[in-house]
Amino acid sequence: MNDIFQYIDAHRDRFIGELGALLRQPSISAQGIGMTECAELVRRLMSEVGIQARLVPTAGFPVAYGEVPSPGARRTVLIYGHYDVQPPDPLEAWETPPFEPSIRNGRIYARGAGDNKGQMFAHLKAVEAVLRTRGKLPVNVKFCFEGEEEIASRNLPAFVSAHRDLLRADLVYASDGPMHPSGPLVYFGCRGLLYLELAVHGAKRDLHSGLYGGVAPAPAVRLAQAVASLWTSLGKVAVDGFYDRVKKPSPADRRILRAIPFDERSVRDDLGCLPVTGAGGRGYYRRLLLEPNLNVAGLTAGYQGPGAKTIIPRVASAKLDARLVMDQDPDEIEEKIRAHLKRGGFGDIEVKRLGAVPPSRTPVDHPFGKAVARAVAQAWGRPPVIVPNLGGTIPDYLFTQVLGLPSIWVPYAPHDEANHAPNESTTLEGFVNGIRSTAAALFEIAAT
Amino acid sequence: MNDIFQYIDAHRDRFIGELGALLRQPSISAQGIGMTECAELVRRLMSEVGIQARLVPTAGFPVAYGEVPSPGARRTVLIYGHYDVQPPDPLEAWETPPFEPSIRNGRIYARGAGDNKGQMFAHLKAVEAVLRTRGKLPVNVKFCFEGEEEIASRNLPAFVSAHRDLLRADLVYASDGPMHPSGPLVYFGCRGLLYLELAVHGAKRDLHSGLYGGVAPAPAVRLAQAVASLWTSLGKVAVDGFYDRVKKPSPADRRILRAIPFDERSVRDDLGCLPVTGAGGRGYYRRLLLEPNLNVAGLTAGYQGPGAKTIIPRVASAKLDARLVMDQDPDEIEEKIRAHLKRGGFGDIEVKRLGAVPPSRTPVDHPFGKAVARAVAQAWGRPPVIVPNLGGTIPDYLFTQVLGLPSIWVPYAPHDEANHAPNESTTLEGFVNGIRSTAAALFEIAAT
Repeated sequence: MNDIFQYIDAHRDRFIGELGALLRQPSISAQGIGMTECAELVRRLMSEVGIQARLVPTAGFPVAYGEVPSPGARRTVLIYGHYDVQPPDPLEAWETPPFEPSIRNGRIYARGAGDNKGQMFAHLKAVEAVLRTRGKLPVNVKFCFEGEEEIASRNLPAFVSAHRDLLRADLVYASDGPMHPSGPLVYFGCRGLLYLELAVHGAKRDLHSGLYGGVAPAPAVRLAQAVASLWTSLGKVAVDGFYDRVKKPSPADRRILRAIPFDERSVRDDLGCLPVTGAGGRGYYRRLLLEPNLNVAGLTAGYQGPGAKTIIPRVASAKLDARLVMDQDPDEIEEKIRAHLKRGGFGDIEVKRLGAVPPSRTPVDHPFGKAVARAVAQAWGRPPVIVPNLGGTIPDYLFTQVLGLPSIWVPYAPHDEANHAPNESTTLEGFVNGIRSTAAALFEIAAT
Repeated sequence: MNDIFQYIDAHRDRFIGELGALLRQPSISAQGIGMTECAELVRRLMSEVGIQARLVPTAGFPVAYGEVPSPGARRTVLIYGHYDVQPPDPLEAWETPPFEPSIRNGRIYARGAGDNKGQMFAHLKAVEAVLRTRGKLPVNVKFCFEGEEEIASRNLPAFVSAHRDLLRADLVYASDGPMHPSGPLVYFGCRGLLYLELAVHGAKRDLHSGLYGGVAPAPAVRLAQAVASLWTSLGKVAVDGFYDRVKKPSPADRRILRAIPFDERSVRDDLGCLPVTGAGGRGYYRRLLLEPNLNVAGLTAGYQGPGAKTIIPRVASAKLDARLVMDQDPDEIEEKIRAHLKRGGFGDIEVKRLGAVPPSRTPVDHPFGKAVARAVAQAWGRPPVIVPNLGGTIPDYLFTQVLGLPSIWVPYAPHDEANHAPNESTTLEGFVNGIRSTAAALFEIAAT
């Protein structure tokens, strides 16, 4: 890989300048700002490095799709990324404007620097480096860069289902999310998500609690009771059958879990308190990555300002999000929660689904996983941290379940990238090592 | 009483005009607007009808105190009222400006028309009518008009404690709150109040529920569990000892409860649903007036906007208000709630008191009660509805417990006075019959 790594070093400053141009182009999917311009820019950047690129329309913002065929190559890699970014608010919290990239302290600051333009663009520069150095890629490469990741990948399921042939590959390779605090990271999927809203309705308006207290329905009391009934007093989910499909960690998972670095001090500093798993690290990652969780993301009822207001709220509601692991199914879990509420006497409570993504995993001992880990080690000069999957949720199931492919994720942004927040950044080291990682991965995958 | 009632009829239009002048003077205690001017106006209006009136300073706004001694009279009546009003917001919802009284459809519309200037002023006009007709009052009368009722009577406890001698009387007579939908009303006290805020703290910031779900503390879950634990599944308060001091209704109370008119249709229309006591009326008033209630007035945690946001809230809190009946004590109930939470494993939950007023009652068969009911019947030409007490809370304990006096309340404002709301009004009929009621009450009390 030395010739390729030398090319990357030699063109480092130009690559950073080009990334700056991409970051300068707003692409706020939630607000529809700059999306057409950014999609076109991405297509052009793809073409410039030798990718056969085109924009494929969806019901929302287009997918920038591309191919670099490599005649005779045995393997095909599908690279996923996204060109849309989060809204930059609150603007006043940015040290430099979100769409005016600024380099300081070895980082480039801009909305999308980490999530996901910096990571996505590294793939393009890897293709450039290999093509300019070797004349061809060791594998066929396909690109699927969507424009709606920050708005829940609304149209990606339809796109993937409609283009199974186009997307045929041996594996999916993607860079998103942050690295481990200790350095490079490889992960193999994610927990799923089920997001529900519960609502209890009472009288048709807020009532004076003195003039109606005792005779009017009390929706906030019932909501608290319904919500509380979902857990045992020990904090386990009390919904019948919730854990039924949860598998024990495989021996490979156990090995991986044991090897994840756990810095108790930094976790405590981050949370401001001890995690519920206590001071040790092993239970921490098993609970976070391989066990499901049910969370109350919001509670709303009645008066919430300072001081006292004596009302019986008209309505009370709760936002619940469940993080699901293999082989839990969001539909089945929703049914179980509904059945639980019904059995508990809360059949009248309104349950609305606000989101569902199945969990998705590729085995940590998959041969392509080992190949990718070797590539990342070459790029960084040290082995990556391996975790079974992300605790959060990404649309990985589209690759593993709809396309039936193994899927491996290698983030290039630092753990403190501040994505979705002001002063988002990525490190120049992570960007350059990301280019090296993608390039090395193509060769390791070709040899697998 | 005919001569007195004739005087009232003859001066009806002037009385309404004078009330208009009082309503034109803003007196918004919460914002400190017009308070000095209004206190002085009230003192002048008292003096004009022959009351020895003065403003007594407090740590807040002054009390307008007055006396009409009646040499040789056996009885002394202390009349309570308040000259401050609620803020008039939202201004754009008023059909005519809140401090420009407007007469239409037999009502006078203005902030304070019902709550409480119209009711308070009726007492003054009753004194005028009796003095001009008979030359003297049949009882000694004292007046205590505070300027802080709408800000929780902050300084009234200190005023009453400091002026026990000045306030010496045989009973307290007061007009506040709305009448019954069917007409005039007499009541004998109120439920008490205990207002608490519970808070559960977790990590030092809101966390991503995917990246921390399962390992971070879940304050909203714990809050729901703590709050839910306060009730049984049947909706009774589960706090040990909560009902200990609650007395069974006396035979007199039972008689009174049975006689309260209950219009199921209007209750259903008002609530938009059936009350929890079902379709009958008797259980309704017993629950509302003579039984305590524990209510969740507010719940707050995490994300409350539309759609999904996947966070673990940093903090979760609940506002609880308890309505207490004789002989429940707010301090003791607070202790019991704290002990309950502690026993349930929620000892770490922060409990803050935001308010406490003891319950207060005068027996419904008190001789002065019968006297007042006779007076109201004379004034209106039909007997009043009698209820044991208000479901809401007023500072009645200052009269019954601090001064040790019986206390009887006779509202003069209509049930739909819209107090604390835009387009507040009182009926001219209620105002005039209020003047007649006070006048007649002085004679009936004198004869008791």
